[in-house]
Amino acid sequence: MLIVQKYGGTSVGSIDKLRHVAKRALATQQAGNDVAVVVSAMSGETNRLLALSSQFRENVDDREVDVIVSTGEQVTAGLLSLAIREAGGDAKSFLGHQVKILTDSAHAKARIQSIDAAPLKGCFDQGKIAVIAGFQGQDSEGSITTLGRGGSDTTGVAIAAALGADHCEIYTDVEGIFTADPRIVPDARKIPRISYEEMLDLASLGAKVLQLRAVEFGMNYHVPIHVRSTFSDAEGTWVTDIEEDMEQVVVSGIAAVRDEAKVTVRHVPDSPGSAYRLFQSLSDAGIVVDMIIQSQSLDGHTDMSFTVSHLDHKRCIEVLTTSCPDLTDSGKALASDTPVAKLSVVGVGMRSHSGVAGKMFRILSEAGINLQMISTSEIKISVIIKEELVDDAIRALHKGFGLHLPVTAS
Amino acid sequence: MLIVQKYGGTSVGSIDKLRHVAKRALATQQAGNDVAVVVSAMSGETNRLLALSSQFRENVDDREVDVIVSTGEQVTAGLLSLAIREAGGDAKSFLGHQVKILTDSAHAKARIQSIDAAPLKGCFDQGKIAVIAGFQGQDSEGSITTLGRGGSDTTGVAIAAALGADHCEIYTDVEGIFTADPRIVPDARKIPRISYEEMLDLASLGAKVLQLRAVEFGMNYHVPIHVRSTFSDAEGTWVTDIEEDMEQVVVSGIAAVRDEAKVTVRHVPDSPGSAYRLFQSLSDAGIVVDMIIQSQSLDGHTDMSFTVSHLDHKRCIEVLTTSCPDLTDSGKALASDTPVAKLSVVGVGMRSHSGVAGKMFRILSEAGINLQMISTSEIKISVIIKEELVDDAIRALHKGFGLHLPVTAS
Repeated sequence: MLIVQKYGGTSVGSIDKLRHVAKRALATQQAGNDVAVVVSAMSGETNRLLALSSQFRENVDDREVDVIVSTGEQVTAGLLSLAIREAGGDAKSFLGHQVKILTDSAHAKARIQSIDAAPLKGCFDQGKIAVIAGFQGQDSEGSITTLGRGGSDTTGVAIAAALGADHCEIYTDVEGIFTADPRIVPDARKIPRISYEEMLDLASLGAKVLQLRAVEFGMNYHVPIHVRSTFSDAEGTWVTDIEEDMEQVVVSGIAAVRDEAKVTVRHVPDSPGSAYRLFQSLSDAGIVVDMIIQSQSLDGHTDMSFTVSHLDHKRCIEVLTTSCPDLTDSGKALASDTPVAKLSVVGVGMRSHSGVAGKMFRILSEAGINLQMISTSEIKISVIIKEELVDDAIRALHKGFGLHLPVTAS
Repeated sequence: MLIVQKYGGTSVGSIDKLRHVAKRALATQQAGNDVAVVVSAMSGETNRLLALSSQFRENVDDREVDVIVSTGEQVTAGLLSLAIREAGGDAKSFLGHQVKILTDSAHAKARIQSIDAAPLKGCFDQGKIAVIAGFQGQDSEGSITTLGRGGSDTTGVAIAAALGADHCEIYTDVEGIFTADPRIVPDARKIPRISYEEMLDLASLGAKVLQLRAVEFGMNYHVPIHVRSTFSDAEGTWVTDIEEDMEQVVVSGIAAVRDEAKVTVRHVPDSPGSAYRLFQSLSDAGIVVDMIIQSQSLDGHTDMSFTVSHLDHKRCIEVLTTSCPDLTDSGKALASDTPVAKLSVVGVGMRSHSGVAGKMFRILSEAGINLQMISTSEIKISVIIKEELVDDAIRALHKGFGLHLPVTAS
């Protein structure tokens, strides 16, 4: 097989851990596989480099900041190659420009456009493990770019796609993706198998262990992703295309996003362009809007509700008041509630099972939790509730949908 | 003018110092010049990176060690570019591969073969200062290489040669090259102008401030080098082609190399191959031989004396005893004295002035210093003396040749 392994910052955070990773990669090769390893910067290193550059420039979306922060992964790639040789194997490091990881020029959040897998195949032909610096690429001008926080996951899956690898292993310090945050729900289970779509919808559960763009990449190029622990041999969570038996699991997991603010604009003229103007003004101000709901129109007017980060709440009100005084009656038509939380129940099985939404609402109602907003998609139901109720709500839903029970084919 | 400035590790060793360097480079540009700046790693950084890689590998002549240590200069290049922008200018950083600094593949001690100056000229055309990571290049396979300790000096002079720059300024923490070590001779003078050849012969005086290969590069491509202090506006020392008035200064400076060992092989057959075998065996053992002297042949035999580092003395004796038992009578023909010091008087004026050697020997004799070996070249006279006498000898010669006096055209 051809296997890509990606190790995160905590997995390569010390000399001893690098030795452990070297042995793990070498064992995979010695089991008869070609192995490419993608590495992050040693934990803490990216922050150290960002702190240095922030002495001169606050913004990170800068060509020179990318020159600086990309050295973190470069050092790990060199060190791991040495560690693999020390362990008796052979390895060669590759930087972004040496594998021609071509990206756009959006510094600090560049997107991968293409990769030249030929140098890696040449490396395998020599019996060597290829060690690739994650997180970095170069644009068409030859400048170094970086892919944003967690970008090494995307490098890993993209390298796997370019190589036509059998799968991509994402090594981290947790055992996989869980049905809910184990700190809140002690009997949360590890999910053995989950679809790309569910994984994207479980963003807040998975974002800490797997970058969403890596999931998108895996979905587009059909790369199976195995999220697992660096420090255990246990199977983790496979993120894959939807398979038959997945459909039988109605709800895969429960995720929550805290610290949101709900904003309502009352009595907006229900005419073309109203929504455009409101949300364009927020976008221009760099405020990210999450959930949007528009109620039924009445008398040619409608109410429009949406959520933003709690941190953006005050500025959001200011922007709407000053940019759209006609739509917001100079702010008098604005109402808001903060902090609130978004709670999501996700599962591909919802597509073929009715009644999931009703069951969710009943469970929350019995727990005395009021729903402020509701939004549904094919495989996800999200509700906005008071921030302080979110832990109770997660526990109630986790139990109500039987997620603590072992998975059985029903 | 087109000026290349190179700043060493202590000159860019902190955020404040980077700000100072940024202002200095910007002022040079604002005076109407195109400016390329070559930077070293922040002081201490290269040692930190070498300590990391030495956890896995002792040797530094390794592809992956170069991947690791080259990040030091990369970070400085990015930071200085940001600092120049912060100061109101504009700048762009370049790594070895982005200026196509092509080298051979001798990792940790690569030699520059060619440079593509076009990207730098494009940078000047946009009104930007070009900031180049020193010390690094890439070989024909696209692997990162480094040039060895002090290699950023060589990068600076090589970039100046490739650009056809008017001169290369080497910024350091001392004011220039002195007639002798000021810690030993308090009234040592700064040398205003010195030839490349003298600079090479004054190695031990200059090696701490200017890498010898940079001097060779300057000599071959006729790049005037101005060694000066980052923290002062005073003129430093110009290292240039020989000019008419230089010939009038008979002795330019006095240098000493301490901690050497003198080894003599007595009664060596004066036949082809004897010297070859002795010195090849030392070379194979990685022992560097400095001065070599062969006395007159007598009865088809000769005595051969040479110096090695005091640290290599014991091993040198072992190697010669075991590798050439016939030539050294299994070691019995070996005699040695350690530690000794090599004392050199250097000056291009010697070529046209006779009697310098005689005067040197008289001064040392009057100071009661015995000479163990003597070696002369066109512009240098070197003697080996007891280590403990070297400070007295330097002071006697410095005074005897009038180096403490102001330079006047004679």
